[in-house]
Amino acid sequence: MSRISVAVLGATGPIGQRFVQMLEGHPYFEVEGFYASERSEGKRFGDIVKVRDHEFSEETMDAKIRTMDIGRISKNARIAFSGIPSELAGPTESELAKKGVAVFTNAGSHRMDEHVPIMIPEINPDHAASVEMQDTYGNGGYIVTNANCSSTGIAMPLFAIDRKFGLKEVFVSTYQALSGAGYPGVPSLDAVGNVVPFIDKEEEKMEKELAKILGGYSKDGFRPAGFKVMANCARVPVVDGHLESLVLKLDSSPSLKEIASVLSEFRGEPQSLRLPSAPEAPIIVRTEKDRPQQVYDALAGSPERAKGMASVVGRLREGNGYYKMFALSHNTLRGGAGGSVLNAELFKAKGLL
Amino acid sequence: MSRISVAVLGATGPIGQRFVQMLEGHPYFEVEGFYASERSEGKRFGDIVKVRDHEFSEETMDAKIRTMDIGRISKNARIAFSGIPSELAGPTESELAKKGVAVFTNAGSHRMDEHVPIMIPEINPDHAASVEMQDTYGNGGYIVTNANCSSTGIAMPLFAIDRKFGLKEVFVSTYQALSGAGYPGVPSLDAVGNVVPFIDKEEEKMEKELAKILGGYSKDGFRPAGFKVMANCARVPVVDGHLESLVLKLDSSPSLKEIASVLSEFRGEPQSLRLPSAPEAPIIVRTEKDRPQQVYDALAGSPERAKGMASVVGRLREGNGYYKMFALSHNTLRGGAGGSVLNAELFKAKGLL
Amino acid sequence: MSRISVAVLGATGPIGQRFVQMLEGHPYFEVEGFYASERSEGKRFGDIVKVRDHEFSEETMDAKIRTMDIGRISKNARIAFSGIPSELAGPTESELAKKGVAVFTNAGSHRMDEHVPIMIPEINPDHAASVEMQDTYGNGGYIVTNANCSSTGIAMPLFAIDRKFGLKEVFVSTYQALSGAGYPGVPSLDAVGNVVPFIDKEEEKMEKELAKILGGYSKDGFRPAGFKVMANCARVPVVDGHLESLVLKLDSSPSLKEIASVLSEFRGEPQSLRLPSAPEAPIIVRTEKDRPQQVYDALAGSPERAKGMASVVGRLREGNGYYKMFALSHNTLRGGAGGSVLNAELFKAKGLL
Amino acid sequence: MSRISVAVLGATGPIGQRFVQMLEGHPYFEVEGFYASERSEGKRFGDIVKVRDHEFSEETMDAKIRTMDIGRISKNARIAFSGIPSELAGPTESELAKKGVAVFTNAGSHRMDEHVPIMIPEINPDHAASVEMQDTYGNGGYIVTNANCSSTGIAMPLFAIDRKFGLKEVFVSTYQALSGAGYPGVPSLDAVGNVVPFIDKEEEKMEKELAKILGGYSKDGFRPAGFKVMANCARVPVVDGHLESLVLKLDSSPSLKEIASVLSEFRGEPQSLRLPSAPEAPIIVRTEKDRPQQVYDALAGSPERAKGMASVVGRLREGNGYYKMFALSHNTLRGGAGGSVLNAELFKAKGLL
Repeated sequence: MSRISVAVLGATGPIGQRFVQMLEGHPYFEVEGFYASERSEGKRFGDIVKVRDHEFSEETMDAKIRTMDIGRISKNARIAFSGIPSELAGPTESELAKKGVAVFTNAGSHRMDEHVPIMIPEINPDHAASVEMQDTYGNGGYIVTNANCSSTGIAMPLFAIDRKFGLKEVFVSTYQALSGAGYPGVPSLDAVGNVVPFIDKEEEKMEKELAKILGGYSKDGFRPAGFKVMANCARVPVVDGHLESLVLKLDSSPSLKEIASVLSEFRGEPQSLRLPSAPEAPIIVRTEKDRPQQVYDALAGSPERAKGMASVVGRLREGNGYYKMFALSHNTLRGGAGGSVLNAELFKAKGLL
Repeated sequence: MSRISVAVLGATGPIGQRFVQMLEGHPYFEVEGFYASERSEGKRFGDIVKVRDHEFSEETMDAKIRTMDIGRISKNARIAFSGIPSELAGPTESELAKKGVAVFTNAGSHRMDEHVPIMIPEINPDHAASVEMQDTYGNGGYIVTNANCSSTGIAMPLFAIDRKFGLKEVFVSTYQALSGAGYPGVPSLDAVGNVVPFIDKEEEKMEKELAKILGGYSKDGFRPAGFKVMANCARVPVVDGHLESLVLKLDSSPSLKEIASVLSEFRGEPQSLRLPSAPEAPIIVRTEKDRPQQVYDALAGSPERAKGMASVVGRLREGNGYYKMFALSHNTLRGGAGGSVLNAELFKAKGLL
Repeated sequence: MSRISVAVLGATGPIGQRFVQMLEGHPYFEVEGFYASERSEGKRFGDIVKVRDHEFSEETMDAKIRTMDIGRISKNARIAFSGIPSELAGPTESELAKKGVAVFTNAGSHRMDEHVPIMIPEINPDHAASVEMQDTYGNGGYIVTNANCSSTGIAMPLFAIDRKFGLKEVFVSTYQALSGAGYPGVPSLDAVGNVVPFIDKEEEKMEKELAKILGGYSKDGFRPAGFKVMANCARVPVVDGHLESLVLKLDSSPSLKEIASVLSEFRGEPQSLRLPSAPEAPIIVRTEKDRPQQVYDALAGSPERAKGMASVVGRLREGNGYYKMFALSHNTLRGGAGGSVLNAELFKAKGLL
Repeated sequence: MSRISVAVLGATGPIGQRFVQMLEGHPYFEVEGFYASERSEGKRFGDIVKVRDHEFSEETMDAKIRTMDIGRISKNARIAFSGIPSELAGPTESELAKKGVAVFTNAGSHRMDEHVPIMIPEINPDHAASVEMQDTYGNGGYIVTNANCSSTGIAMPLFAIDRKFGLKEVFVSTYQALSGAGYPGVPSLDAVGNVVPFIDKEEEKMEKELAKILGGYSKDGFRPAGFKVMANCARVPVVDGHLESLVLKLDSSPSLKEIASVLSEFRGEPQSLRLPSAPEAPIIVRTEKDRPQQVYDALAGSPERAKGMASVVGRLREGNGYYKMFALSHNTLRGGAGGSVLNAELFKAKGLL
């Protein structure tokens, strides 16, 4: 079976490089072209790749990808994976959709658009139907967004808990990694030995998008979920992985053990469909007293392609009528490129590609 | 007037060194001796001091302090400032109190004891009376604790808000500095580029101690304040300064401007008594979009002796019926040695020394 | 063919864990037991493993290894891989050798002993013969050391250059990773945002051991190589990988291109014998203006088992009659556990096991 | 006596802010205006200042400076202190000199110009005469450069040693702080947990400029000193302070004690003239086994204005006919703004202003 041709937009940034990493040797998709800003045009992809700890490097990647030049987009790409900055993404992605391209994007520009879904396949596979209401659908084109990196990691545990125990209020504080700010991103003089308690529009995104992700969809549009989110976002000097503290108010009073079971046993469509980038268990519960931690758990979840695709939850506690825990996920894999790749895999499985 | 003689216990740790820094040239107190573990015995204080960025160094300190040996405690010390680890502090401090010494301690061992106050002079100067009920008072001896480093920084803003607007619930997540764990403390392999979402007993301390600090005191004992605290504590790779995110539920609905005014204008007894280590304004409100930050604000509050003695609050926001903000304070100054020095200054002013 | 049974000593430290990582599924060796300090006795290996970035974790390792308890050493282990601290290693290792165990150690205690080789198989495979002169050889027991972590990475490039162009003087300054100091190792308060220009005995080791490694061996003993080494060692806040600056005085005047070729084309016995842990190319030359860097290059060298086993050299320059370059290698793989595993593979190939 | 009016160019960068810090309340100079790029124009200086650890902040500075707007340069400034990036500095500084302004600059653009001195007043006060040969001197205008940040810290110890013992060869490797790269400077993704072994043109500067600084000057021009410099430069994740390892070849064979004495006792014209920004001792020798370290020693040298103006030397060793040591200095104070302020103080003392 011939693979579906894809282009990667913004291929030189932290998200773009992760797209290429996840697409290398992908069973459904074949990278046909890279796009980036003019600055990178004409460079070989192998010369710009900078993923730490040799997780993905010019020595380990396919020769085809290594030698592909930045800047040549195949006219016939069926899919565009977009890792371009939000301020540029809006019009570019609309234009591609108009030309009949299926755009799976990490950018926030279209997330709150009327029939554009914020997809997390374990949570809202039915939202996929929304693209049929997009103006460009007749043409084969549409836009699908993945969740914001700080929403993704907690969305799955919140969904599993909400479905079973009813979620009323979510108090979340983030410990977000530097790679979430792109490259060059945060100046090192602000990052080394410091915390920056501000990430532009991040709290607003979390407070709105989680309700859309966990809410319903019908042809009349999206219907946000009923719980409230109170978010405080901060950047910490960590390379990859967003850690988040959670305090939850529920409708019922489960034991911590019940919550742990509901989280550990949670499975969604990506698991039943055995999508290539789906983690075996979307939520991993750790029982040590001091986990999850970014450097040990961000890449958790063993099989090769689904590394960094799980949420890791730990330190379940309760008191004063509230439940507390920490959750962690990889912000450029599950919370970035991996989220969109998994979305595209779901769309293929559903016959929408 | 002759100065009151003091001993510093645990003088070689991060807290102990800050005690010496604050006591150097102090108008009321004179350091007569240093105590520490056997390992340091016989060393000169000037040879062990290690405060970063030359804030306090052997080149800048008094010759008397620089050349004082570790290990000689003056028999006649009226006050012991204690920076020893909690696991050792309990019995040592009780014994000193029995001998008639006024112990001002940073250790947590006695904080929840019946007539032992957790003092923050801007908040609960009336709690000082509790020492008169301690068994050892007849002898001149008693124990006064300062608040835990993560409670201190938020206690003043919470108190100012509670008094005016009524506090019902406090959701707090901490971004705590490495110096809070003592020395050697956190291994660098766990700290560099990582966050550790666990600090032993810290959340329990915050949830209990804040209520005691902001509560009342009568001869029958302490009466905890009525609000609830839900705490999540984490260690970040920052040297000094505990940053904390807050979400507050209040009894009333003030505007953000009203809250900002109440915080900025807050003053307590240390200010009216002009205590030497009292900051001019105990709470500094910053209006930038991205402050407070540890490296810029932990030492805020200008005059020489009261550096690092203020709480710095920023990013006031509201939504969903809650108020949000970030607060920061210096964990080894206000939240450690400085807290106890200010307590002793209050006790002197009250004629309790 | 049945595999040779091995025990890992000091299995819980950074070096010990890397031994287990490299031995997992090894074609020649089978782990039969772990030894560590009493503190860890009885714990399962899977519960103590802490290698960053999920390179090696309880989720990805063999069930057998994961569930093996610390503390049970098989009496019949033919090999002991030792990652215990040097201050303890000396007598323990001697005793094991007396019992007929072949000890491959990372500790420095025996490195300068008379017939104990410091092996780097690409450089001095003939030094293996020295073990036959050790007192315990009749019994099957002997001690083989790997080079100090800061010597290893530069030894291969220095050897390749010396053999071809004659080496007279080596000026080396190190930028050494935290994992080289073990765990808990360097306190985070000394490491974050700082450099410590002192590593106990490290400069002395480099100045003596490199000459032994690159020197000759006959039954009369080791004959040190003739060049001089001037070393300055410092610890930087990096997790893994020792970077080192080099200035070299040579006997001849090759072009930079000639040096680059000699380095890139260098191969030794591990390559011709196709030892399992041998990197394809022991020295990788990078041509970018700003490499090697720890986070991108420490794990260079693709195939699974030989990750982190190459030296990476970059920034070749010349001037004033000297040659300059930077070299990097992974201090707990090539410069630690990997070095000893490769030594044992060589000994097996030579029929010495 | 009325103070000399000065303008600060590039006032918003790390160097520019340090200029303002050192000029605040200066006995000779009065800041009349700040210049920076258009981006900052119209902002108040107090709103942009970002010096860590409250060393210099809007709370502690003069009201006049705090409220001064960026962008208004006084037409009558006698002096311009320049902290603008080298790529812009060249023509701007030439133009100002033509208008009769005395330019004291941190930029490298003019350092190797024919009659432009690279001044370190302790070393080459006689080089000041060179400005009289600059074309613009008749007009009152001239350009004086301070040394590159990585050359400054070692220049004083090298000079003291050269004068007494004769210097033949200098092998230097640097551990340079992030603030040396300006702001935003090094992206945090490259800095956190990593070392970058490349700083553009830095090694070339060190190899050329040190010889000019320590050389002679006559009306025929500069005569470089005779020793050779072999430099390797790297950026480490440290905020302030350049640490450098040194190996020296001398003409004679002094004892380490003699070298230590020569360094400690070294004094120059700034000391005999008691210039306001001169450190009491330009070189501080530390005897601990593990110093100097950036976080403890970069600001060494006690009196208020001369903080961060000394070189700190430690770990004196010898062997193989070479001498080894580590040296440290503050890259934005002594190695930046402070260097130029001290130069201007010398020029005033010499009647050249």
